[in-house]
Amino acid sequence: MTPILHEDPVSGNCYKIRLTAALTGQPIERVAYDIRKGETRTPAFLAGINPDGRIPVLQVGAEGAWRFLPESNAACWWLATGSALIPADRFMQAEVLRWMFWEQYSHEPNVATLRFWRRYVGECALSDAQRAAIPGKHAAGQAALALMDRHLTGRDWFVGDGPTLADLVLYAYTHLADEADFMLADYPAVQDWLARVAAMPGYVPMEA
Amino acid sequence: MTPILHEDPVSGNCYKIRLTAALTGQPIERVAYDIRKGETRTPAFLAGINPDGRIPVLQVGAEGAWRFLPESNAACWWLATGSALIPADRFMQAEVLRWMFWEQYSHEPNVATLRFWRRYVGECALSDAQRAAIPGKHAAGQAALALMDRHLTGRDWFVGDGPTLADLVLYAYTHLADEADFMLADYPAVQDWLARVAAMPGYVPMEA
Repeated sequence: MTPILHEDPVSGNCYKIRLTAALTGQPIERVAYDIRKGETRTPAFLAGINPDGRIPVLQVGAEGAWRFLPESNAACWWLATGSALIPADRFMQAEVLRWMFWEQYSHEPNVATLRFWRRYVGECALSDAQRAAIPGKHAAGQAALALMDRHLTGRDWFVGDGPTLADLVLYAYTHLADEADFMLADYPAVQDWLARVAAMPGYVPMEA
Repeated sequence: MTPILHEDPVSGNCYKIRLTAALTGQPIERVAYDIRKGETRTPAFLAGINPDGRIPVLQVGAEGAWRFLPESNAACWWLATGSALIPADRFMQAEVLRWMFWEQYSHEPNVATLRFWRRYVGECALSDAQRAAIPGKHAAGQAALALMDRHLTGRDWFVGDGPTLADLVLYAYTHLADEADFMLADYPAVQDWLARVAAMPGYVPMEA
């Protein structure tokens, strides 16, 4: 049956799954939750979808045998299995994962978290610990974007000569970096690469 | 040629690569750096090993065609490719990655960072922002260990009926959690699982 994406439409982690599904030609159903209203912390969500209370979760299988896959990049991997987005070559496959792990460790906690705090929480509503973390996250986000820009200088894609899952998962929050007070204009190679991803056949924007 | 691991021997992220190599029967050479002395930020390291200034990096290939793979979990994936540690089944493979991404996002930044701050930096040398982050990281680390304990209750391994790469990468910092002021005794299913990993044929301890 059609996989079901449990998501918050404003989350880049959810968008990357929709983008992977679109670019591999796989339909998915969508169920929306508002994380700011605690809709992923209800007893029903914790018992039935994800005991960790987080989205996205990709639900795959069929009635009576549904299975639930948390972690955005794991859901993208499941969708992209067997497609050209995951190279078969041993080293290239590991390189794709290298960038996917880097995205979750060095990019998302800075770029995505600052975007969420600034755009959806609001500086006044942040805790003291969150406010104290802003300068470090901003510097780390700038370092992440600069590293991407250096890597992409003279290269069209993150791994090899064509688009892979590494490009899609990095695209999701990078193309929203301005919303987190980063200046994408400072990273020209990143900007060119964003345009290449957006020109891929089957691409869908975040708002779709 | 034999892969070369650029590492800091006290890092759990480096240990998980040695553990994967040992359990898959692959010899690796080791080159040690002390991150506290800035040895991964020298011009030679940045130019030749990793422009991001981080370890671990796995160097694979041969003279004249060396390739460099940062990100601990990507290096483990490269080593485990073709072994039973990575299930061929589409959903199980994605589940292994689900736990590997979760490890880097929800476990390592809490358990490993607190261990590093407490054991290797020292509370007096922390910045104000780091000190402000301690309670949040401690609570998130406890939540991570509790989630592991719930998942392992009634299960021997994280995915399926046998050990996978998910178990190895989660083992690395979990078995050191006491050094970060967590109480492993509070998580009995985790403790039983730690013993199962340590009993795997070919297992090597961190100090080896």
